[in-house]
Amino acid sequence: MSLNTFGHLFRVTTWGESHGPAIGATVDGCPPGVALDAAMLQHWLDQRKPGQNKYTTQRQEADQVEILSGLHEGVTTGTPIQLLIRNTDQRSKDYGDIAEAFRPGHADITYHLKYGLRDPRGGGRSSARETASRVAAGGVARAALAALAPGLTITGYMVQMGGHAIDRARFDWGQIAQNPFWSPDAAAAVEWAETLDALRKSGNSVGAVIEVVARSVPPGLGAPIYGKLDSDLASAMMSVNAVKGVEIGDGMAAAALTGIDNADEIDMGPDGPEFRTNHAGGILGGISTGQDIVVRFAVKPTSSILTPRQTITRSGTSTEIVTKGRHDPCVGIRAVPVGAAMMACVILDHLLLDRGQTGGLRGKIGR
Amino acid sequence: MSLNTFGHLFRVTTWGESHGPAIGATVDGCPPGVALDAAMLQHWLDQRKPGQNKYTTQRQEADQVEILSGLHEGVTTGTPIQLLIRNTDQRSKDYGDIAEAFRPGHADITYHLKYGLRDPRGGGRSSARETASRVAAGGVARAALAALAPGLTITGYMVQMGGHAIDRARFDWGQIAQNPFWSPDAAAAVEWAETLDALRKSGNSVGAVIEVVARSVPPGLGAPIYGKLDSDLASAMMSVNAVKGVEIGDGMAAAALTGIDNADEIDMGPDGPEFRTNHAGGILGGISTGQDIVVRFAVKPTSSILTPRQTITRSGTSTEIVTKGRHDPCVGIRAVPVGAAMMACVILDHLLLDRGQTGGLRGKIGR
Amino acid sequence: MSLNTFGHLFRVTTWGESHGPAIGATVDGCPPGVALDAAMLQHWLDQRKPGQNKYTTQRQEADQVEILSGLHEGVTTGTPIQLLIRNTDQRSKDYGDIAEAFRPGHADITYHLKYGLRDPRGGGRSSARETASRVAAGGVARAALAALAPGLTITGYMVQMGGHAIDRARFDWGQIAQNPFWSPDAAAAVEWAETLDALRKSGNSVGAVIEVVARSVPPGLGAPIYGKLDSDLASAMMSVNAVKGVEIGDGMAAAALTGIDNADEIDMGPDGPEFRTNHAGGILGGISTGQDIVVRFAVKPTSSILTPRQTITRSGTSTEIVTKGRHDPCVGIRAVPVGAAMMACVILDHLLLDRGQTGGLRGKIGR
Amino acid sequence: MSLNTFGHLFRVTTWGESHGPAIGATVDGCPPGVALDAAMLQHWLDQRKPGQNKYTTQRQEADQVEILSGLHEGVTTGTPIQLLIRNTDQRSKDYGDIAEAFRPGHADITYHLKYGLRDPRGGGRSSARETASRVAAGGVARAALAALAPGLTITGYMVQMGGHAIDRARFDWGQIAQNPFWSPDAAAAVEWAETLDALRKSGNSVGAVIEVVARSVPPGLGAPIYGKLDSDLASAMMSVNAVKGVEIGDGMAAAALTGIDNADEIDMGPDGPEFRTNHAGGILGGISTGQDIVVRFAVKPTSSILTPRQTITRSGTSTEIVTKGRHDPCVGIRAVPVGAAMMACVILDHLLLDRGQTGGLRGKIGR
Repeated sequence: MSLNTFGHLFRVTTWGESHGPAIGATVDGCPPGVALDAAMLQHWLDQRKPGQNKYTTQRQEADQVEILSGLHEGVTTGTPIQLLIRNTDQRSKDYGDIAEAFRPGHADITYHLKYGLRDPRGGGRSSARETASRVAAGGVARAALAALAPGLTITGYMVQMGGHAIDRARFDWGQIAQNPFWSPDAAAAVEWAETLDALRKSGNSVGAVIEVVARSVPPGLGAPIYGKLDSDLASAMMSVNAVKGVEIGDGMAAAALTGIDNADEIDMGPDGPEFRTNHAGGILGGISTGQDIVVRFAVKPTSSILTPRQTITRSGTSTEIVTKGRHDPCVGIRAVPVGAAMMACVILDHLLLDRGQTGGLRGKIGR
Repeated sequence: MSLNTFGHLFRVTTWGESHGPAIGATVDGCPPGVALDAAMLQHWLDQRKPGQNKYTTQRQEADQVEILSGLHEGVTTGTPIQLLIRNTDQRSKDYGDIAEAFRPGHADITYHLKYGLRDPRGGGRSSARETASRVAAGGVARAALAALAPGLTITGYMVQMGGHAIDRARFDWGQIAQNPFWSPDAAAAVEWAETLDALRKSGNSVGAVIEVVARSVPPGLGAPIYGKLDSDLASAMMSVNAVKGVEIGDGMAAAALTGIDNADEIDMGPDGPEFRTNHAGGILGGISTGQDIVVRFAVKPTSSILTPRQTITRSGTSTEIVTKGRHDPCVGIRAVPVGAAMMACVILDHLLLDRGQTGGLRGKIGR
Repeated sequence: MSLNTFGHLFRVTTWGESHGPAIGATVDGCPPGVALDAAMLQHWLDQRKPGQNKYTTQRQEADQVEILSGLHEGVTTGTPIQLLIRNTDQRSKDYGDIAEAFRPGHADITYHLKYGLRDPRGGGRSSARETASRVAAGGVARAALAALAPGLTITGYMVQMGGHAIDRARFDWGQIAQNPFWSPDAAAAVEWAETLDALRKSGNSVGAVIEVVARSVPPGLGAPIYGKLDSDLASAMMSVNAVKGVEIGDGMAAAALTGIDNADEIDMGPDGPEFRTNHAGGILGGISTGQDIVVRFAVKPTSSILTPRQTITRSGTSTEIVTKGRHDPCVGIRAVPVGAAMMACVILDHLLLDRGQTGGLRGKIGR
Repeated sequence: MSLNTFGHLFRVTTWGESHGPAIGATVDGCPPGVALDAAMLQHWLDQRKPGQNKYTTQRQEADQVEILSGLHEGVTTGTPIQLLIRNTDQRSKDYGDIAEAFRPGHADITYHLKYGLRDPRGGGRSSARETASRVAAGGVARAALAALAPGLTITGYMVQMGGHAIDRARFDWGQIAQNPFWSPDAAAAVEWAETLDALRKSGNSVGAVIEVVARSVPPGLGAPIYGKLDSDLASAMMSVNAVKGVEIGDGMAAAALTGIDNADEIDMGPDGPEFRTNHAGGILGGISTGQDIVVRFAVKPTSSILTPRQTITRSGTSTEIVTKGRHDPCVGIRAVPVGAAMMACVILDHLLLDRGQTGGLRGKIGR
């Protein structure tokens, strides 16, 4: 398996560096006949685009996507779809410091140790810029899902910034697009704005927790034992830059539950089984139940900060480093559309896999 | 890619059902010339074996492993290693209830929905019994690591049961093997014993958090962007039965940190870089730093409990179900050696991958 | 990807050595609900079984297959199917010669060079005994094809032994099972019997060409560009021991054709397109046309012969070697059911892949 | 596994259609530190470029390759290398005929049957234009091989056109680059020129056989049983447009040999084993012997010809079709650099795989 690729049947390979001529995604295995154009992808890319408000990096990138292949007369042909995003804002600045010294908390040192060299310009391949390619590929997945699983929706939002979590009692789907933090809790958004203002002034950054929910997902997606829907989601989310934890349903909190509390009891509804609760996050035994699929992931604080940190250079000399530049004080904000894109890719992939193995048969319950 | 397989170059395919004649693992890609025999694997299997104390299932399984291929004169030949574990305790009991009704929190309903049928005997393929195969395969990985990365150790232990976490101030590596819970905190073990006694009496169960640490791992293992060491670890741990969350380093708590706190500052030591802290859990940009690799995962409470829960039958009728049988009140206990086995497999796989692509070169730091 | 595995969605991993306790196949990705039992597999294994007539090795192997997993109440469950074949005839003979010297034309020397060691007992992993596992797996594929593509048939036969090819004018499907060579030409079978008798007496062996035809294959199977049906067939056949060439349709002879001759002209028939000829062997652009799929492969003569050949030992000393034992004078005979099994696996795999990506839609021709 | 991808560790995904804006290859898994620039790739692309002489298509394509990622300061970084080739000669001609009717011998009808639609412009994805991407990727593989296996060479040449094969007695390596057919036999080249002139005038085309030889390949590359070097080569060559047969060493002719003749006897030379003959084509048991690796493949005649052929339209009506345009009368000529590129990719891939599993150890022969 290739290491810049994910997916089984719907496969996405991303490529490109932060300050090279372009980045992109090679998307293979998309079903044929899916209506698609660049504008549909641009919609999602614009959500992740830098410089949209004062809480994200001020780097200016149009993030304009071009579809170079796999389309004919407005529909996918079933052949690879090449998505190209040119890098327009490659300031010819001096990377001397970063090229010499390793930023703590950053991949500089591990790339150097592994490959013996690295592209220091903007973090090269390890830059969060790579996630634009994921969002574009996720847009393709969404288009295919619209055709194959009408009614299925995928929504990401922020549920915690730094130490401040949303109040679930104030959860409002309608709020999510109304604030720069994708917060479903308007009050939390106000609080977070203050937090970020203070952090930016002090040359600091902060982490976040993102939640992504997929609704109206058909039951039966996923597969034992190592292609479980949840293990693929865990891998997908953990592969996003700066992610340090992934949860399904109750997640880490499941440890504190008893079996009585944790059991999602089942009733028979008019259209099939109905669950009284969703501790499982919509997945049992690695296979979707038909309930909402709920994934959360934690994003660590941006490691590129203006406060000096102790480090060493390539020649082994101790030094202090300060990362100038236009970095996100909370990279978690722009991770919201990225998490949703990864969910879309994983669900489509499992929908195709399930159709391949079982033909999409569904075991009957009830008469 | 096969869905009962994990790994890139060191590949493990497990097979078998809880109450079939046998279970096992097909291990492909092991380096040649590794000293191996069944006793070396048995050592690890005995740690996971049921019925070892009153806190685990009383099912009697010898879990005796046979090596059917891939060995010659005591060393691996580089060809597939077939590991066979016979099921000896297949009580010919009546599975009528479980075959008809779906246990809440269990994969019964999703297997039925996906495949249109399922093997109800002991949970079939979805049984935690499958994890014995992982432990056997992990033993092979450990043997290969002993040859390729001498000094590397992998240790699992429990850090939380139900709501009770260990006190890190009392952490003692020597305690881990001294109590039935693999607790590094002797006092916590006493507390957990009481908790479990009470839960068992009330026909209930409880969740847990396991931590696995790999020490003396070479830097440079892992690869951007979708074959990251941490995304593969997340997938590996999430694929273990009942796991609902995975963390690397600070995990979900990283969200609450600031960039200043999170930076693992670097000094130059006599043998290379030294990090002052390890918030990152030994992985930056998906690649090992050389620090301890720290992974945690949460195991939900056993869903098979003696307390009646509301559910439905295949014909759609509401009913109550009680899962009789010999189930673990805290399946997390036996998940400890399983997590360690998965860590061993993933690290060996990445060691081989890195050697394949880079030849094991290591970028120099210092003169 | 694992190197002892083939297939994309229907995946077969074989394991085991010629003189170990057992060999077998781990079959993953079989659709659920397929009627299957050991007797159905035995039918095919008996075709490949040694010692059935004087033209094949006299090694006595029952080649009895056991199904250890993946079945419940007579149908597949969709989980891995473990097929086990015990080795019963492991003569405790002295392998001293073969262990020391390398047989010309055999994998002895390459295994030694690659792995630094090898299992010399009966050729270990490189023995043609491995092909029994393929035939068993092919039996599973045939059972699934019977359910998914009723009417589809796969037939193998020999079209050339040594320099003697069949006369296509005498081709008779009914003859194939009537002679020990799977010859569709009764006269050729008589000739081949004489050839083999003479070769055996002189301690020699001979090569052969096998043809495998799949009929009533749905159009649309296969995929550009590297998962072509023909490239997967080529890989599958070339992976069989001793195969040195693979042809689709006209094969190597296509080089001598002109474009006018090679064009398989198309008419409209009552049920869809009809082709006047089948130079293409049923595959265009890597995708099935609906015509017969025709594959041929050449098997080199058995390299284990009684005539002394010049070679060297591990210590680099020149020596002559004679391979005693019970070897097939024409290993091509027993390759016939093996080739058919590989065809079955590849076609099922592509049927599942196509269903995954396209849902099995078929572009309409005609009103 | 993705179906537009080949390779295990060195993975190539090609994308793009004949008349879209661009085609290209995403190359993943290249070792870091390999000297590379666009000119090195252009060297190989120029060999395949159309319009170089009167015997190939007159389509005008510069086939200029751009490297969009994976390079820093003139060396590879170990991250994905995106190779982009713009399509410059997309004549805005009317594809009406080809869009409606299916060309016999072409993928038109199978794409339509599989996907329900197809891109008819120049054959879309099924066009031989895709092979430019392979040649570019092969150039990357050659650059890596130059670093990892100095002295290794890969050479392709034509050994048969139509019914006329070269005379091996006249084989001259120096001739290959001296004639438009890559013929090692100058006399054959003269003969072929006449053949092609006549065919072109009569609106016809012809097939060919290409041979590719790799010399100084380390022994030990390849792996049992389904990742054999020869099965991967067979798959790679069969995936090239119009290829209908693949041979290793003696190939199909091996069927006519006896075991005595076929044995490549072994002597001890000063540097290791020496083989008296090379019937095996440098591969035994799927693993390289250290001898020349010899692969041959047959290319069928171009199916796009000026002579009318009988076919049907999408609506099922019978019609005659003539393929106007600038097609190669013998597509085999331009397949020569393509075959060599595929050989380079496969050998590099197996070199990395072998290094991954065995660390490149080589079993000793001699003291």
